[in-house]
Amino acid sequence: MELLEELEIAPCNSSQYLRPFRLHYRQNGTKKFWDFMRTHDSVSILIFNITRQCFVLVKQFRPAVYMCELERHNPEVFQVKDMNDCCYPRDLLPASVGVTYELCAGIVDNPELSLAETACKEILEECGYNVPVANLRKISSYRSGVGVTGSKQTLFYAEVKDSMKTDIGGGKAEEGELIEVVEIPLEDAFNFSFDENLPKTMGVMFGFMWFQNNVAPLLPQKIKTNKITPIP
Amino acid sequence: MELLEELEIAPCNSSQYLRPFRLHYRQNGTKKFWDFMRTHDSVSILIFNITRQCFVLVKQFRPAVYMCELERHNPEVFQVKDMNDCCYPRDLLPASVGVTYELCAGIVDNPELSLAETACKEILEECGYNVPVANLRKISSYRSGVGVTGSKQTLFYAEVKDSMKTDIGGGKAEEGELIEVVEIPLEDAFNFSFDENLPKTMGVMFGFMWFQNNVAPLLPQKIKTNKITPIP
Repeated sequence: MELLEELEIAPCNSSQYLRPFRLHYRQNGTKKFWDFMRTHDSVSILIFNITRQCFVLVKQFRPAVYMCELERHNPEVFQVKDMNDCCYPRDLLPASVGVTYELCAGIVDNPELSLAETACKEILEECGYNVPVANLRKISSYRSGVGVTGSKQTLFYAEVKDSMKTDIGGGKAEEGELIEVVEIPLEDAFNFSFDENLPKTMGVMFGFMWFQNNVAPLLPQKIKTNKITPIP
Repeated sequence: MELLEELEIAPCNSSQYLRPFRLHYRQNGTKKFWDFMRTHDSVSILIFNITRQCFVLVKQFRPAVYMCELERHNPEVFQVKDMNDCCYPRDLLPASVGVTYELCAGIVDNPELSLAETACKEILEECGYNVPVANLRKISSYRSGVGVTGSKQTLFYAEVKDSMKTDIGGGKAEEGELIEVVEIPLEDAFNFSFDENLPKTMGVMFGFMWFQNNVAPLLPQKIKTNKITPIP
């Protein structure tokens, strides 16, 4: 259980994490502009533990998600307009409303690593499994946040075994990461996926459904009997 | 075909579209901060035209996506650091690298409309179909951009007929929207979904797969024969 205290919200004038730009352009003769942010491309990995027939996800407190929910309950929290102004909300929500379930993922910021190598590094750092690059299967790539960042995400599938678990995972503590590794049994995946009380990314939902269509039919019978059941 | 000219890129100090905030907080005793952006929640709609057995998507030029690709070819375009500095890239890419296929979607910014009503308004504005609210089926909701925005997206399914097309669609020209409505035949949906040369959002890929699992089995036989084929 996360303990959350001493919230202070202020407009952010300059950030090494958020780099806003404005593009002026002429499209089919009409002058326009668009504000957007530069971010890195990223990789994410659907991990299935074949030994225990479960998906391996990560779970972490996401300040941006938490603040969306806090604003729903206290619309005044973002009224601070002046750069020197701050808001100290008192009527807090439990931290759990900002804890999301996600696929293991990471940004692509080391040009010396391939996408698959970056994915393997993240699997080890966040989930503790040592996966050979050759074991990764690329599912596809797509665009995320097309209005704001437009960055490219590449999704991989990795099958792991208990014997590949060489580390505890949990992210890089020195970078402030506080990641919990969670296992979702295959037979619970469908209900988990569509339970809106458990905040999650679309990557989780897509990944589970892709597995059902593409991997489950090829699993040994023992596993297939636990397959995700469709909506009745 | 989009014609793109006169690009000018500059850091963006102040924007009515991008509202960056910094949250200071104490998590389990450790002081941290996180920079994020306030955005609206949104709705998106998987639209299937039953008359012509095709999905109805929107396609538009996305400056943020275009700039990701331009940076891949000209890494110097985002070197402008000074607020008064500008970059005028000469070696442009075709606009098509920034054109993405997306589900019909819109932000939730009118508190007088329900999510389903907002979805119906977007279907009419962007795609030209007049869909009764009762015809919408909610699929689920999830979190997008958990690191940066964390906003909630709610996904609906709408079945439409040619007779419901009362307008040309294309978005609100007065707001600068230039949206092309495209139809993807059901039998082409799988190949389209996994063709990485056609930039798209994960919403499109998830939607098509959800349809295959949840709607296609209930369609009349004539349609079922065109069902999306799984990976061989």
